Amino acid sequence: MVNRLRLGGLTEDGFSYKEKFIIRGFEVGINKIATIETIANLLQEVGSNHAQSVGFSTDGFGTSPTMRKLHLIWVTARMHIEVYKYPAWRDVIEIETWCQNEGRIGTRRDWILNDVATGEVFGRATSKWVMMNQDTRRMQKVSDDVKEEYLVFCPREPRLAFPEKNNKSLKRIAKLEDPVRYSKLGLKPRRADLDMNQHVNNVTYIGWVLESIPKEIIDTHELQAITLDYRRECQQYNVVDSLTGLELTEGSKMVSVGTNGSATATATTREDDHDCHRFLHLLRLSSDGREINRGRTEWRKKPTR
Amino acid sequence: MVNRLRLGGLTEDGFSYKEKFIIRGFEVGINKIATIETIANLLQEVGSNHAQSVGFSTDGFGTSPTMRKLHLIWVTARMHIEVYKYPAWRDVIEIETWCQNEGRIGTRRDWILNDVATGEVFGRATSKWVMMNQDTRRMQKVSDDVKEEYLVFCPREPRLAFPEKNNKSLKRIAKLEDPVRYSKLGLKPRRADLDMNQHVNNVTYIGWVLESIPKEIIDTHELQAITLDYRRECQQYNVVDSLTGLELTEGSKMVSVGTNGSATATATTREDDHDCHRFLHLLRLSSDGREINRGRTEWRKKPTR
Repeated sequence: MVNRLRLGGLTEDGFSYKEKFIIRGFEVGINKIATIETIANLLQEVGSNHAQSVGFSTDGFGTSPTMRKLHLIWVTARMHIEVYKYPAWRDVIEIETWCQNEGRIGTRRDWILNDVATGEVFGRATSKWVMMNQDTRRMQKVSDDVKEEYLVFCPREPRLAFPEKNNKSLKRIAKLEDPVRYSKLGLKPRRADLDMNQHVNNVTYIGWVLESIPKEIIDTHELQAITLDYRRECQQYNVVDSLTGLELTEGSKMVSVGTNGSATATATTREDDHDCHRFLHLLRLSSDGREINRGRTEWRKKPTR
Repeated sequence: MVNRLRLGGLTEDGFSYKEKFIIRGFEVGINKIATIETIANLLQEVGSNHAQSVGFSTDGFGTSPTMRKLHLIWVTARMHIEVYKYPAWRDVIEIETWCQNEGRIGTRRDWILNDVATGEVFGRATSKWVMMNQDTRRMQKVSDDVKEEYLVFCPREPRLAFPEKNNKSLKRIAKLEDPVRYSKLGLKPRRADLDMNQHVNNVTYIGWVLESIPKEIIDTHELQAITLDYRRECQQYNVVDSLTGLELTEGSKMVSVGTNGSATATATTREDDHDCHRFLHLLRLSSDGREINRGRTEWRKKPTR
């Protein structure tokens, strides 16, 4: 009975994992659509359930037996999520995920998000992970031992959630330079932001990025793509500044960028694309300005529902 | 297919509602057990799904047709939750809920929480709600019109989650007097804390209460009961102080309450009950000290798992 209710499992070929979720009321925001944090949380959930289903660690961090022996953990290096249509409260969604080798020092995990009622793909995501030694906090090359353990569960041919050339998941994020247009200073981790390693969980960074988005954008637009480059761990007692600026596209003509730089100024970007806004983000330590995270977001006008 | 996955519905007599949930990885904290915020979120979810299943508003706030016509909303006045054993990641739980008339100005909603695998009751909760006029923000008596609408869905005989005499859900919460032992000042709502009314959601208050609990208690104990009295709405731009002090029991002999009043002092309470700690809490506006919330928590030693 209890097992009948578990809504996930490996696919037939064993090379990916699928799980269904019903969107809960506290996972949606204004407009009753799932928040981007909810989407990110569910990606993380299905990733660790996948790892657990093939016999990796049951602690939610998906480490292989060799990794645990050597005190190695996975650390998020990049996360890229695109959502074409947000699910609403009570919608049933299915997420498929798989992982693969990525270069010499990392792995990659991809996701496809489906609306179960319509069969439509409503989102895609990809991520890069590196291995860190838990004791020294240094990065470490993925050794052949570890690779062997997980490669048996990976697709035989490369399979990408974003197979298109020049897709946005690959885009380099420029560093946001001071002075920035929008900011929210002095953000502090709460108890619920810390995960089992007593570090700030990677989904919290998304919320912090959103803190410095101007309110008129939040009120009228929805996030269509977010890319985050994770550059430094954030600890329990760190205080963080969230900075946001317009992403200037080369050759684009800028109009009406507001006059006072306050968070209530209207952020209009390119004349030929006034319904879409692109921002660059920087999360940094308030104390010494060291960079924690670099991000990029794209926003489209909210659909009428 | 999609409907088969919805795990809730009215009970046979129509007087209560039950729904099953699988605990997700991001709903658990350290120790892999569900956080108290998760429990509170699920209580809220099942309450609004209940209201929706009998035809009340689909916005998550469970207002009846007459209430919507008159711009009336439900506001939490008191919430009391007891958890005897926390569910873990992947556990399947079932929550039953029902509501009833409560005095002249309010209603009450009760919950029973079951572990599906063992059939055990692992928690109970009760709450009081009052009606507020959305435009004037004033409390309003529950009129006979509104009562008639929901009483048809209430148990015919009074049914209480805590039928015991002198149970803790009824206990008056004393006002916490300055100077307090523990505090966390300057808490600010984040975007995700706001609900569709653009006010701080009632579950956020639980997290704020926890912010001023000393770390040694969080590390070694778990919450067994929490009572919150909601006294004032908190808005998006409010800044909040969270204060915590020991609850002194009359006639009890106090030992070793620490010397410096800092959050790292050891909080030992009664000699004859050194594994259980009882605290009083106050959430107030930083600006003028007005009381937002008054709380009481009890903590027991963490079980070894």
